[in-house]
Amino acid sequence: MLDYKLLQALASVVECGGFERAGDLIGLSQSAISQRIKALEVRIGQPVLVRHPHLAPTPAGQRLLTHYQQVQLLERDLSGALPTLDDAAPRLRIAINADSLATWWAKTIAASCQQHGVLVDLVVEDQDVGLKRLRDGDVAACLCATPTPIAGARCQPLGDMHYHPLATPDYRQRYFPEGVTPDALAQAPAIVYGPNDQLQHRFMAQCGYQGYFPHHLCPSSEGFVQLAAAGMGYGMIPFMQARSLIENGELASIAPSQTLKVPLYWHYWRHSGELIQHLSQALGNVTLQ
Amino acid sequence: MLDYKLLQALASVVECGGFERAGDLIGLSQSAISQRIKALEVRIGQPVLVRHPHLAPTPAGQRLLTHYQQVQLLERDLSGALPTLDDAAPRLRIAINADSLATWWAKTIAASCQQHGVLVDLVVEDQDVGLKRLRDGDVAACLCATPTPIAGARCQPLGDMHYHPLATPDYRQRYFPEGVTPDALAQAPAIVYGPNDQLQHRFMAQCGYQGYFPHHLCPSSEGFVQLAAAGMGYGMIPFMQARSLIENGELASIAPSQTLKVPLYWHYWRHSGELIQHLSQALGNVTLQ
Repeated sequence: MLDYKLLQALASVVECGGFERAGDLIGLSQSAISQRIKALEVRIGQPVLVRHPHLAPTPAGQRLLTHYQQVQLLERDLSGALPTLDDAAPRLRIAINADSLATWWAKTIAASCQQHGVLVDLVVEDQDVGLKRLRDGDVAACLCATPTPIAGARCQPLGDMHYHPLATPDYRQRYFPEGVTPDALAQAPAIVYGPNDQLQHRFMAQCGYQGYFPHHLCPSSEGFVQLAAAGMGYGMIPFMQARSLIENGELASIAPSQTLKVPLYWHYWRHSGELIQHLSQALGNVTLQ
Repeated sequence: MLDYKLLQALASVVECGGFERAGDLIGLSQSAISQRIKALEVRIGQPVLVRHPHLAPTPAGQRLLTHYQQVQLLERDLSGALPTLDDAAPRLRIAINADSLATWWAKTIAASCQQHGVLVDLVVEDQDVGLKRLRDGDVAACLCATPTPIAGARCQPLGDMHYHPLATPDYRQRYFPEGVTPDALAQAPAIVYGPNDQLQHRFMAQCGYQGYFPHHLCPSSEGFVQLAAAGMGYGMIPFMQARSLIENGELASIAPSQTLKVPLYWHYWRHSGELIQHLSQALGNVTLQ
């Protein structure tokens, strides 16, 4: 059995961003905290913290933290049956795709988190990387576009996000005066989220074009919209994120008949406790359009 | 002297996300591209590409790409003097802090990028990590809050971003009915961007509180605002990002007298060519409030 006092010390150091504040939090001296971290590192035979460029858990340390959080979640369920147990706010570590986080996520889960006193620790990852984190035990749940379930985990479909190829009206007039022809697509600067982002390629394939196209790279959901709204390029943007910009005429589709649907799935471990169940229920009611 | 045909092959593969498309782009067969990549790897004695989880440059490959981009920038300046030279769209790789990217960045640089046909390749990094990328030659410029100049680089101050501690009015009423007292700060869930984010701690110190506070972690600028607007916590948000939400009453400051100023600096290599100079001029006119 693990010594959970050691894990608690690790969690406090990461939570507070320092040994002294961690000691304040759990009522120990800085040197006692330091000893517990050392004891933990001896126990597992490798470092659990790095100091540079800032204090952070190593992959092994993060794995231990997630385990500690999962045990806390289970204890919280237990304390429902045995109310005399302590009940500190549990933290749920969740991998999530950037576009969901920038749009519907918070308002969908806020009430459930508030009701059950949950804190979230969000990790922004797209697609397979998020699922790999779930498989590795680095996160308790994962929201992504991959339907493939993981053994031991549930996979709940949430519906489709709708993406439109958006640009400013000026941009559309400048680069696509005759519509999205192959020639125009080969010349017009696009915006691509990153190397994992295949939406732009899918859109081009739908338009019958394959080949080189100039593009900006912008790995930020909101930055992506800002680049499009500033007229730097066109890009595939979730309709719900651009709704107000479309309504006030700042952005418009360059090809209204061409939209892309991206299905989203919520993956979580079967035995991860009631809080995840509550969250999953809240997610069951989401509207993604 | 490096063989720039090999670098061009690498750049094309990364740009197009595949060997075949890269071949189409520069008029070579897939196997010719593959041979050039191999020759490059032999030349520098290590891999320049990884295949999994997706095709991407290794750190050494990225270093070569940035060098290639810099040479392209210099060639572009040259082609201004010798107009018969080819002038393909150059790409500027820039490290930038998330809040700038989510707010003022695109509209400030868009006209300059369009005028000079520049494509940007943005890397979201805060503070020292971005500067380290500049020092390592991984990016051509860096926008961050660190004033320390790097040898050989210029450091241009851009002014201050103003951060306010914002939450929904309901949240403020629930957790801070008597203002930001130490007791309230120890109980109210905050939102923190990540382990590098010291804004929340600075705000608490200004309020005379040091110690544990419950918090969500959300490493996304727009997600951060969404969490606050959904009532999940309060957090330090750039005024310019929250302006419309403040005006329509969705967000309000929990401590109107407590704002934080974060100065921003633009770092770039002295000899990085005219395009960076144009961009720096555009940035010189920015208003961050």
